[in-house]
Amino acid sequence: MSSATPSVPRLFGFIAGSDGPWRVERITPVVGEPVPPATRISVVADAAVELPANASWSLRGITSNERYVEREEKTTLVAKQEGLGRPAATRAALIPIRKNAAWWALTQDERRAVFEAQSQHIAIGLKYLPAVARRLHHCRDLGPSEPFDFITWFEYAPADSAAFEELVHALRSSPEWNYVDREVDIRLALDPA
Amino acid sequence: MSSATPSVPRLFGFIAGSDGPWRVERITPVVGEPVPPATRISVVADAAVELPANASWSLRGITSNERYVEREEKTTLVAKQEGLGRPAATRAALIPIRKNAAWWALTQDERRAVFEAQSQHIAIGLKYLPAVARRLHHCRDLGPSEPFDFITWFEYAPADSAAFEELVHALRSSPEWNYVDREVDIRLALDPA
Repeated sequence: MSSATPSVPRLFGFIAGSDGPWRVERITPVVGEPVPPATRISVVADAAVELPANASWSLRGITSNERYVEREEKTTLVAKQEGLGRPAATRAALIPIRKNAAWWALTQDERRAVFEAQSQHIAIGLKYLPAVARRLHHCRDLGPSEPFDFITWFEYAPADSAAFEELVHALRSSPEWNYVDREVDIRLALDPA
Repeated sequence: MSSATPSVPRLFGFIAGSDGPWRVERITPVVGEPVPPATRISVVADAAVELPANASWSLRGITSNERYVEREEKTTLVAKQEGLGRPAATRAALIPIRKNAAWWALTQDERRAVFEAQSQHIAIGLKYLPAVARRLHHCRDLGPSEPFDFITWFEYAPADSAAFEELVHALRSSPEWNYVDREVDIRLALDPA
């Protein structure tokens, strides 16, 4: 069976241990079970399923089509957002979350209503563009027993750290977060060897 | 990292070769590349990634949350639909499809508009309930190089074969199918050894 060969990587691994360009500043379990400690993290495109021998743990996620964004919102987002890898963006956050069974039992219109009408998820994110760049990875459909449903990777400059705290605080205070039953907040500083 | 242990299987494998309770009646490549021949197919829950030694080929997919159905539609569907495995439902169809890049670049509101306002995908399916039972499996986010995006498994009684032909014809004639760039239609009859 031939397979589509994607030109742009979609599957990313986040490998935690004692190696990697991103130094762990703190790991905060926000809700639910924490992750084991680590001092360094590397982000690997087209990640193999196997964990490197010197890794402590790893997570993986795949970029996919957007589930909630509508055309007008997309146009506004694309006009304001910047990509990952900006030289000044030497701070990062790796935030895996899991949503509960009640969330996944909602229909599309109900999930969209919680996500935007009630929680302003897109509008909140827009406020912090272009300062905060992000890439969303989906995990739930990689297999039947992934530990998280989503992994978001954020990058920002040290001067925007306070703004980033506002962003995560606003999202965690929203009705959407009533459906989050596991979240870990891992903060990182770029510190290549 | 602990994992959620699902009580209901989500990952299914469709294993084609010379074994299995479902006898292949025909394999029709509708659009795009065909699949190799096979005489029997088995459906396996919680499928291992590895292909059994005597298999010709296999596909896999994972059940997930619905992407387009709204609450009112869901209520109507649930009231009318029946499950897989009915003793009289001795005919099946295994129909893997792939959608093109233009589909995946649409926003949620645009995809919903093609799916239902333009194509009546849900309304067409509803017409053939409870005669046709189905289970939709997603493949696209299992990994970056799956050969198909979706696999649907349908079951119906021999007396409903003509109705099933109407159903697939109606969907293939809809605007949504302009985005389908690979589809194979595999018809099966239950014939346990």
